[in-house]
Amino acid sequence: MNNEKPIGVFDSGIGGLSVLKQFVRFLPFEKYIYLGDTGRVPYGNKSAETIKRYAKESVEFLKSKDVKLIIIACNTVSSVALDAVEQSSNVPFIGMIHPAVAAALRATQNNKLGIIGTRGTIASKAYNTTISQLGNTSSISITARACPLFVPLVEEGPDWIAHPSTRLIAEEYLKDFLVEGIDTLILGCTHYPFLHQLLSEILPGVALIDSGEHSAVGAIKLLAEMGALAAEKNEFLKKPDIDFFFTDIPVNFYDTAPRLLGFPIESPHRINLGQ
Amino acid sequence: MNNEKPIGVFDSGIGGLSVLKQFVRFLPFEKYIYLGDTGRVPYGNKSAETIKRYAKESVEFLKSKDVKLIIIACNTVSSVALDAVEQSSNVPFIGMIHPAVAAALRATQNNKLGIIGTRGTIASKAYNTTISQLGNTSSISITARACPLFVPLVEEGPDWIAHPSTRLIAEEYLKDFLVEGIDTLILGCTHYPFLHQLLSEILPGVALIDSGEHSAVGAIKLLAEMGALAAEKNEFLKKPDIDFFFTDIPVNFYDTAPRLLGFPIESPHRINLGQ
Repeated sequence: MNNEKPIGVFDSGIGGLSVLKQFVRFLPFEKYIYLGDTGRVPYGNKSAETIKRYAKESVEFLKSKDVKLIIIACNTVSSVALDAVEQSSNVPFIGMIHPAVAAALRATQNNKLGIIGTRGTIASKAYNTTISQLGNTSSISITARACPLFVPLVEEGPDWIAHPSTRLIAEEYLKDFLVEGIDTLILGCTHYPFLHQLLSEILPGVALIDSGEHSAVGAIKLLAEMGALAAEKNEFLKKPDIDFFFTDIPVNFYDTAPRLLGFPIESPHRINLGQ
Repeated sequence: MNNEKPIGVFDSGIGGLSVLKQFVRFLPFEKYIYLGDTGRVPYGNKSAETIKRYAKESVEFLKSKDVKLIIIACNTVSSVALDAVEQSSNVPFIGMIHPAVAAALRATQNNKLGIIGTRGTIASKAYNTTISQLGNTSSISITARACPLFVPLVEEGPDWIAHPSTRLIAEEYLKDFLVEGIDTLILGCTHYPFLHQLLSEILPGVALIDSGEHSAVGAIKLLAEMGALAAEKNEFLKKPDIDFFFTDIPVNFYDTAPRLLGFPIESPHRINLGQ
């Protein structure tokens, strides 16, 4: 294993940049290849069959870049297409579901979990399946809700996140969680951490589980076990080493993408998949 | 010209079904081929370059079905990719911009027009260009606003359209139109007619221009001039003659698509484009 090989990060679009941000925070000495399928985003409402096809094409691309680990930084792909990723990949990979579920099971005190995500993620019941694999299902109650408006609201920017309409929408989506009395909520979509403050206000005292953060922690452990962590450097890194690939540069790309990532994106490459 | 050839209707997804609905209302004796690129929807935020590529692929597909006329039932494609459609098509076509602009210029009394649409549509300034071609621009003031949240709100369904958050969002988007005192608003996206009542309440007295309706009227005229209208039949048609093709059958397809179309969709075909 060449420890200096890059880590591949794949998302349906720019949401995975919020996951990449967590990786850069915890694993600053790694090189990264980020692939966003912005030409076909969003995956959230699309069928499992189509998402599997797109995921395979993206994994093939990352393999061609000789990555040592693939991060499926998209909860929808992680929910409905990990089997397709597994079939096409001989490279180890980490999805968004397992690390978040493990963190939620550690966090809950009353065993009442909530999950929010896209329609595809929630319809797949992937979180429920993973909870039964990792936890004692008979004692755990699960409430799940698809929140399709959260992604476009976050992409509209900070003014809209602070707008009274966003609070009304969030109150509508989250009212069942208040009734159920959950104490832990899995944020099952890469865009949702940007609603952290609003969600905490509506669900006070509820632990909010950020999939990006927990998958980055999971990657440290996996790379260490593989003996594949990049060498630490003495210098303070000026900026992270990331190559960006997108299947489209959308109209509002340079407004939204750096906001999700937390720093500017330089010279992204425009590529085609599935040709 | 074989008058019994079908009319091809192309949209990025299911929004064009609201346009098809208007065609079926005004031209009930025609056969239709509907193509929705649901595997890559929405186009609204994507770049002009990518939208042109997708539009060409869709036009090729409709040409392979031997259509007599192509309806570009997508305001985003009509705004940024009509030149690409023109290059790949020897079949006459009608977009969404020209018929709506002509109707708006007829409707306005005070020459203050408003336009709402996706980010791509508004950024293209296609409506402004067409207004200068058809009208006396020096006397016409134009206010335009991208409304990216309207499509996901409409797709969430009638309960959300009636939700107080939707009114707050609409008031935020439309406030400049009140300040400007427009008397005519072009609904520059196929989903917006479903917000008709709310928009009328927020902008009382303002004429709302539905692109689907006016493009259907334009098609009657064009087909009549071509001598290509389908023969009228004496029987009451039990149901319209439409073949449906989609690049994905999304998770909520059977909830949302019939609502936009106004009647059920039977046996849609699942196809791939751009392979």
